[in-house]
Amino acid sequence: MSDTSRLNVIGRPLPRVDALEKVDGKARYVDDYRIEGLVHCAMTLSPHPHAEVLSIRTDEALAVPGVLGVFTAPDVPVNQIGCVFQDQPLLAAERVRFVGDRVALVVAKTRDIARKAAALVKVDYRPLPSVHDAEEALKDVAPKLHAQGNLLAHQKIRFGDAAACLAACDVVVEHEFEVNYQEHAYLEPQGALAVPEAGGGVTIAGSMQCPFYVQSGVARALGLDRNRVRVEQAVTGGGFGGKEEYPSEVAALAALAALATGRPAKLVFSRAEDFQISTKRHRMRMRYKVGADREGKLQAIYVTQFVDSGGYAGLSTVVAERANTTAAGPYFFPNAHVDTFIVYTNNLLGGAFRGFGNPQVTFAIEGMMERLAARLGMDPVELRRKNLLSEGMPLICGQALPPSAPSRDVLDTLAQRSDFDRLRAEALEFNRTHRFRRKGVGLALSMYGCCLHAGGQHLEGSGALVQVRADGSVEVNIGGTELGQGAFTVVAQIAAETLGADYARVRVLPTDTRMVADSGPTVASRTTIMSGNAVRAASLQIRSRLVELAASMLGCPSREVEVGNGAYRQVPVDPPALRPEVSASAPSPVTIDHPSSTISQANVRFPDLCMEAFRRKLHLAASGWYAPPPKPWDKDTGQGIAYSVYCFTGNVAVVEVDLIGGLVKVEKVFAVHDVGQVLNPVTLEGQVHGGIVQGMGWALSENLVLDKGRCLNPGFTDYLIPSSLDMPQMDATFVEEPYPDGPFGAKGIGEPSLISVPTAVALAAGDACGQLPDRLPVTPETVLRWTAKDGNGQ
Amino acid sequence: MSDTSRLNVIGRPLPRVDALEKVDGKARYVDDYRIEGLVHCAMTLSPHPHAEVLSIRTDEALAVPGVLGVFTAPDVPVNQIGCVFQDQPLLAAERVRFVGDRVALVVAKTRDIARKAAALVKVDYRPLPSVHDAEEALKDVAPKLHAQGNLLAHQKIRFGDAAACLAACDVVVEHEFEVNYQEHAYLEPQGALAVPEAGGGVTIAGSMQCPFYVQSGVARALGLDRNRVRVEQAVTGGGFGGKEEYPSEVAALAALAALATGRPAKLVFSRAEDFQISTKRHRMRMRYKVGADREGKLQAIYVTQFVDSGGYAGLSTVVAERANTTAAGPYFFPNAHVDTFIVYTNNLLGGAFRGFGNPQVTFAIEGMMERLAARLGMDPVELRRKNLLSEGMPLICGQALPPSAPSRDVLDTLAQRSDFDRLRAEALEFNRTHRFRRKGVGLALSMYGCCLHAGGQHLEGSGALVQVRADGSVEVNIGGTELGQGAFTVVAQIAAETLGADYARVRVLPTDTRMVADSGPTVASRTTIMSGNAVRAASLQIRSRLVELAASMLGCPSREVEVGNGAYRQVPVDPPALRPEVSASAPSPVTIDHPSSTISQANVRFPDLCMEAFRRKLHLAASGWYAPPPKPWDKDTGQGIAYSVYCFTGNVAVVEVDLIGGLVKVEKVFAVHDVGQVLNPVTLEGQVHGGIVQGMGWALSENLVLDKGRCLNPGFTDYLIPSSLDMPQMDATFVEEPYPDGPFGAKGIGEPSLISVPTAVALAAGDACGQLPDRLPVTPETVLRWTAKDGNGQ
Repeated sequence: MSDTSRLNVIGRPLPRVDALEKVDGKARYVDDYRIEGLVHCAMTLSPHPHAEVLSIRTDEALAVPGVLGVFTAPDVPVNQIGCVFQDQPLLAAERVRFVGDRVALVVAKTRDIARKAAALVKVDYRPLPSVHDAEEALKDVAPKLHAQGNLLAHQKIRFGDAAACLAACDVVVEHEFEVNYQEHAYLEPQGALAVPEAGGGVTIAGSMQCPFYVQSGVARALGLDRNRVRVEQAVTGGGFGGKEEYPSEVAALAALAALATGRPAKLVFSRAEDFQISTKRHRMRMRYKVGADREGKLQAIYVTQFVDSGGYAGLSTVVAERANTTAAGPYFFPNAHVDTFIVYTNNLLGGAFRGFGNPQVTFAIEGMMERLAARLGMDPVELRRKNLLSEGMPLICGQALPPSAPSRDVLDTLAQRSDFDRLRAEALEFNRTHRFRRKGVGLALSMYGCCLHAGGQHLEGSGALVQVRADGSVEVNIGGTELGQGAFTVVAQIAAETLGADYARVRVLPTDTRMVADSGPTVASRTTIMSGNAVRAASLQIRSRLVELAASMLGCPSREVEVGNGAYRQVPVDPPALRPEVSASAPSPVTIDHPSSTISQANVRFPDLCMEAFRRKLHLAASGWYAPPPKPWDKDTGQGIAYSVYCFTGNVAVVEVDLIGGLVKVEKVFAVHDVGQVLNPVTLEGQVHGGIVQGMGWALSENLVLDKGRCLNPGFTDYLIPSSLDMPQMDATFVEEPYPDGPFGAKGIGEPSLISVPTAVALAAGDACGQLPDRLPVTPETVLRWTAKDGNGQ
Repeated sequence: MSDTSRLNVIGRPLPRVDALEKVDGKARYVDDYRIEGLVHCAMTLSPHPHAEVLSIRTDEALAVPGVLGVFTAPDVPVNQIGCVFQDQPLLAAERVRFVGDRVALVVAKTRDIARKAAALVKVDYRPLPSVHDAEEALKDVAPKLHAQGNLLAHQKIRFGDAAACLAACDVVVEHEFEVNYQEHAYLEPQGALAVPEAGGGVTIAGSMQCPFYVQSGVARALGLDRNRVRVEQAVTGGGFGGKEEYPSEVAALAALAALATGRPAKLVFSRAEDFQISTKRHRMRMRYKVGADREGKLQAIYVTQFVDSGGYAGLSTVVAERANTTAAGPYFFPNAHVDTFIVYTNNLLGGAFRGFGNPQVTFAIEGMMERLAARLGMDPVELRRKNLLSEGMPLICGQALPPSAPSRDVLDTLAQRSDFDRLRAEALEFNRTHRFRRKGVGLALSMYGCCLHAGGQHLEGSGALVQVRADGSVEVNIGGTELGQGAFTVVAQIAAETLGADYARVRVLPTDTRMVADSGPTVASRTTIMSGNAVRAASLQIRSRLVELAASMLGCPSREVEVGNGAYRQVPVDPPALRPEVSASAPSPVTIDHPSSTISQANVRFPDLCMEAFRRKLHLAASGWYAPPPKPWDKDTGQGIAYSVYCFTGNVAVVEVDLIGGLVKVEKVFAVHDVGQVLNPVTLEGQVHGGIVQGMGWALSENLVLDKGRCLNPGFTDYLIPSSLDMPQMDATFVEEPYPDGPFGAKGIGEPSLISVPTAVALAAGDACGQLPDRLPVTPETVLRWTAKDGNGQ
């Protein structure tokens, strides 16, 4: 499997299967769906972070011409939409818990009418005291959001005896880190269309990552069997985690409207709504204590961290489990103690976001490594190298690091590729010669558990349906989704390679719950592995039928049939010594690649083979499935097999800081990624570029500002994502050490591409200013504060 | 499999799965599809039965406001739409060959505009001599429609030496029969919608029987890969064969319009268009010669028959092959010689129609049996009984009649159930006592080869995709279609029974080429067997996974798990003597059906099992496939295995004839059918009722009148299908002798339900008038001609 020398499709920089329709404007996003009789939805949202709902009056809204209905909590059959905990109503009944909690849904002939009428729904609130900090919320005096109190969950790692060890360590450093929210800033806001079905039920089309979440969420809320809820992913303008759990809420509202009115109903968020009420990367506070011996050998880590879940649980506990499990980064600690507290507050909803709790702890652990190196007087890169985990070593969850773990290669490649020491020297030289400008260099590593955590392993199975048509064209259906990340392109390559089909004639169809079994979510950088393996499994079933057929057509044993380059051909496998000699005078009985014949004795072209297979009634469809082996996990100690495999990442960032304005300009980012095996170098690099830019944004400019839970900058004028003018030079390098259980050896890249970027960028900004950052983002205000302390950068 | 005593779902009169949406009006037929931007198509048709096309001028049509395009032959990428022979252009280029041949396609904003503009396309024709009779068309002087001449094909049966045997027979009778066209008279005319797809290709929704025919036909005509042509069956208002091959033409036109304009395009026929240009049951002329010995033992049959194909081949050769192969009906002939000539004429297109060539030859062979009985002075029922084929006896194609062949049971049951002798006596008594009214009784049998003929066996494979959701609801997808015949209901029963699922929670989804492999056509009464077996195969895969799981949950070996009634339960299979005795004082370790627990030790409810299976990542989807064994066939002699299995039918009709007006009133029809095993008695009886009424119509009142190829009665005012006032009493009885290769022993019913009805009705009408009919339909004019000969019925 890891021998890629014979591969024709895998590893090549093939164009994306979805490129044309996205470039020519024909791709249909959910707001492009036009259906006769379509009605539109709008929401009435709580202006309060915390309040009792005393009454809701809908008469004024209902009186608006064009309004078809106004729905409140009693109209929802099963008024629960939480995906892990049943703590969140689809429409709030007695209490609102954050600014933007929904109290009513208005359905009208146009979106404008719906929005106007939504503003006319009169809600009588009794404001309650609110709490806006996770640690504050755990105090006895804090207002309680839910009956159980504000502690949603407490996760732990108990490995060795960290407290005792720290007490005896040569060197101990301790620091607190805090990171802010990040908005996903996908191109397309949340949106869903629901169409009532004849015979009962509803079909959903929407912007989403996880059609099966939407299916089960909508089915439960509306009291329908799952086979009555069909969910098709519309072309989706980015997700980044923001369309993992949240679209179930959007879809359930649209479905409620559709079933109540009997008409197709659409709900699309405005950008401001999307900022305020959809999920964000979690705000976290992390207190780290790390002990080492005098030589810099790490001994113990002790972490206490607080995850702000906002008004409801959503996926916060799941995100937190990744922060909990990988709190120590890619380093070996013989003792670890982690407490992760997931806490309700009256803030915005925390949720899934590329990296999923890992970028936060990476910022902390890498900051600790810098501080420890400073304390020890060691080169921080050397300190990292000395403590890097490698295959077979225990993680803090007790798991031995599984194969495909080239952590050292990643660091070495990064150091060489970036010429790190020279970069540092150049920065020093630059800073020596400039008055108001500073250069800085930062390096960060991370370790990412690829695919779902043991706690979510019941969602790991993934399906695929592959159909080969009689003309040799191929249809591939997966349970994973295409979000712009290139998933459909790599599964098309996997199908083409496995079947010996023409890549250009493989079509990956929009993800639709009807096509495959519940395949879990498109998250956790799992799609290449999970959907890829499922596609490979399905394709192998068909391939083995075709190999038998080819063998019968070629008149050879099936073990002599080799597949590739658009044909099935006979390649005798007998050792040459045992084969009869072919005398020079005798005509060869075998014609290879005879151009005038599509079926020579030794070569059957794939389309001809498919037509013959159809004629002989071979089954050219197959349903594939992949699920990794079970992972035992003890929640009480955080010990077990956390993830099936890990990815290592490294980034070096070079920045230039304008000391007068405080602006940090990222000049160049090097990225090195351990990807198992490169399936498509172009789409892979695309992912890395995206991760770099999104990571940069969180590190520097994206600063969501809340006032008592209300977002003060809900739009791209005030919430600053990197623009094309901010793009750095980017340099991506891939380390290949095949993952034995990945399709053609591949692992994931979606999240690893981001995880260590913010830290590298922030460390570079700090380096320029002679500081070690402990807050993200590093805004111009931060820089000016730093430089003010230093006496204006002199 | 044939032990139905433990079945919970199979054999029960369950409601149709598609009943609600058809009754409440929510079912969407193709003309109900509303899409923004939809454009409409209309056709310009030849008014000539045969002409050269000298020029086509489209400027006037293009100038009509709202017209988006006018397309002619050069606009079709691959201008061929014939499904067996490549003899038919999608748009006629140089020649038109029947009244209604298409020369142009107009696309406009509304259907009215399109139709008006279509009338403004100016075609300059040079009329050619035309031929309107198949035998005439074979003469040298006849105008030739195609380069090869007018003989499309000549099919044969050569079994023994019929000519020599006839020369030596004691008794020989000879007669010529002729039957007219029949219009399918489906509720809904032909129609298709084509939607251009982002990224290239087209999605078709339409009224159709055979989505895979449409897929391959559209792909070829438009030069697309098959994976770029998705075909979804819309809810279809009846097919009866009329939507077998023809919808490919309708869909290709709509697809041409959609791809040329970039907009969704719909083509729906008017009823008059549908009468004129879609296919009909073939007009046939049959010359039979039958010889027997003095005791009535049949010795030889010699048949020469002519099938009028119309201007193009369509499926005529395929229909004819059934008439050719079963020309001798359900009787044993040691010698047979059949010549079947399929001939081009300038008449309407012959095509698939319920019975598919068999009703025609049944009318002839049963007419011969009556004539032979009269000649021999034997009771015609006795003559039939004496010569009936039974299991193991050779058919005229040389095949030994395979098991599940209760021909004698069918006849005996029919005679008993109808009390045939008493009916005849009553009729005689009635006729003795009435002056202007006569009663008559007719009996007819038939034998029908179920599923595709050997000549079409490459299309026999059939697929299914079954998905079980975590909540225990089930989705079933088949390659066969629901046409009102109840296919979805029986496959839902098969899935529910096999899986142990709740029938009410099994959903059969609209047929869609994306879901399953090419499954051939929904014709030949094959859907219950083929799709049924495929669903069973898929369901068994899932069931075996669930049985393993249930065994692990119940703590018993999997062979002890029994499935049914919504649960998987332990039923110990060890002989009682070998099992340890349970002492009266010891508590039983097994709780059976404990009401407060859904999972007792010995019983797991299906939904609980599914949820647990999901948690354990079992694959709950499966792709099923069924294809019968190969059937060798020699076209030159008509010898081989023609069909996998045969169905026997019998009808008795009782009619009353009004001698003054010539009207024949059908009073009662008895039907006896050999169905293998009854899966659903209600849907089965529905099929039988439909077959009776449609058969009656062809026998008596449905008389399509052509004038030089132009239909003079293209509508239900002049083409008289039976109305509710014409309904007879109907009595259906089923003979069960399980078909070993059918799902739960079942065979098909769709076509058998009709085949012997027209003959029984016509013989009854003849019996009332003292005549043996040899023309269908037996119109009032026929009756008056008969009775005029008799001296006005005195």
